[in-house]
Amino acid sequence: MDQNELKQQVGRKAVEYIQDGMIVGLGTGSTVRYMVDALGQRVQAEHLNITGVTTSLRTTKQAQDLGITIKDIDEVDHIDLTIDGADEIDDDFQGIKGGGGAHLWEKIVATNSNKIMWIVDESKMVHQLGKFPLPVEVIPFGSKHVFDELARKGYKPEFRLADGKKFLTDQKNYVIDLHLGHIGDPFALSDELIKMVGVVEHGFFLDMVNTVIVGRQSGPEVLQARD
Amino acid sequence: MDQNELKQQVGRKAVEYIQDGMIVGLGTGSTVRYMVDALGQRVQAEHLNITGVTTSLRTTKQAQDLGITIKDIDEVDHIDLTIDGADEIDDDFQGIKGGGGAHLWEKIVATNSNKIMWIVDESKMVHQLGKFPLPVEVIPFGSKHVFDELARKGYKPEFRLADGKKFLTDQKNYVIDLHLGHIGDPFALSDELIKMVGVVEHGFFLDMVNTVIVGRQSGPEVLQARD
Repeated sequence: MDQNELKQQVGRKAVEYIQDGMIVGLGTGSTVRYMVDALGQRVQAEHLNITGVTTSLRTTKQAQDLGITIKDIDEVDHIDLTIDGADEIDDDFQGIKGGGGAHLWEKIVATNSNKIMWIVDESKMVHQLGKFPLPVEVIPFGSKHVFDELARKGYKPEFRLADGKKFLTDQKNYVIDLHLGHIGDPFALSDELIKMVGVVEHGFFLDMVNTVIVGRQSGPEVLQARD
Repeated sequence: MDQNELKQQVGRKAVEYIQDGMIVGLGTGSTVRYMVDALGQRVQAEHLNITGVTTSLRTTKQAQDLGITIKDIDEVDHIDLTIDGADEIDDDFQGIKGGGGAHLWEKIVATNSNKIMWIVDESKMVHQLGKFPLPVEVIPFGSKHVFDELARKGYKPEFRLADGKKFLTDQKNYVIDLHLGHIGDPFALSDELIKMVGVVEHGFFLDMVNTVIVGRQSGPEVLQARD
């Protein structure tokens, strides 16, 4: 199977966990795209009453086109289960997200979810975080000074670009990617970054995920991370 | 003297600290407005070479109209002195700002300043913080859940309104004011709030100010807070 087939298989496996009546958080990314496709098929075939809460404008459009009812996060009082991708997951099931730049809304949806599931192909499973650049979402005003401070700390920052200009998130902020190589203590770095004035959020998702489904050649592997 | 005369006197006193060649951070608010007026007079009368860095669209317009050169914060490599107002200052010179909703940009400018001066009338000096509602700037997406969480914690949150709608900051975020009455440990509450997902910034300015000038009937009083 190629990587796309692995992602598709994982997406199909994930929607088995969705039950009639659930409010489901829908992440963003290529693996999630396959999962939303599979959910659309189940909703139509089984006439399921599912409400989706999305984490990006892209996923909203895809889900609505498939006939899935979408509500704004502020129109629901809870989310039963959120299914999302991840860019790196370490041996302790700590994650980095934000390669697609949607990690702020993804984290807000995750924070308000009773259960969180990540679906990934096996290339995302690592022993230690940091090979994937850590995204930091920053307020444009004064962002050069945040960048300089991150450089002084040795965190190898780089403004994310799109079409030659600074990339803008759905929230109209910039993203600075930190090329750290390896991260010894994600909790300490998370604390340090979130307290920097001008930083809105970072891509660490720590102690959050409950279940991980990994796409492997032998078939989807379901890992229980925490209750 | 009425309150406006006190504010004007303090504003004039503050600009005595501005020297030729300085890069000066210009805050926001009614007292700062008088200070910027006085600075404009000095710049014109003494032909001073001053560069201003502003914290709001309002102050930018006022300063430019007075002929003060304004640069964006990302065009300067440092700020020599920032002069700003404050909504409450306690006995340890810890402050609350954000009554005008400009505290995010104000804090970014303050963080990049070598020295910080606050100019206030005497009604802003308190023994303990908290009578003035603590502003919390939040991402609109999911803000109802942040509000509910703040209410569960007993922090008496209230969305700030303008013209019957939710107030929008220059950064297009909402403000939730916390009606705490008194705040025992501002550092602990600061830490707790900044770690809440969806919170961009709050109105605490802790261990930041160097000099406070208080407008009193007897004349402006200069207080050295910290080096």
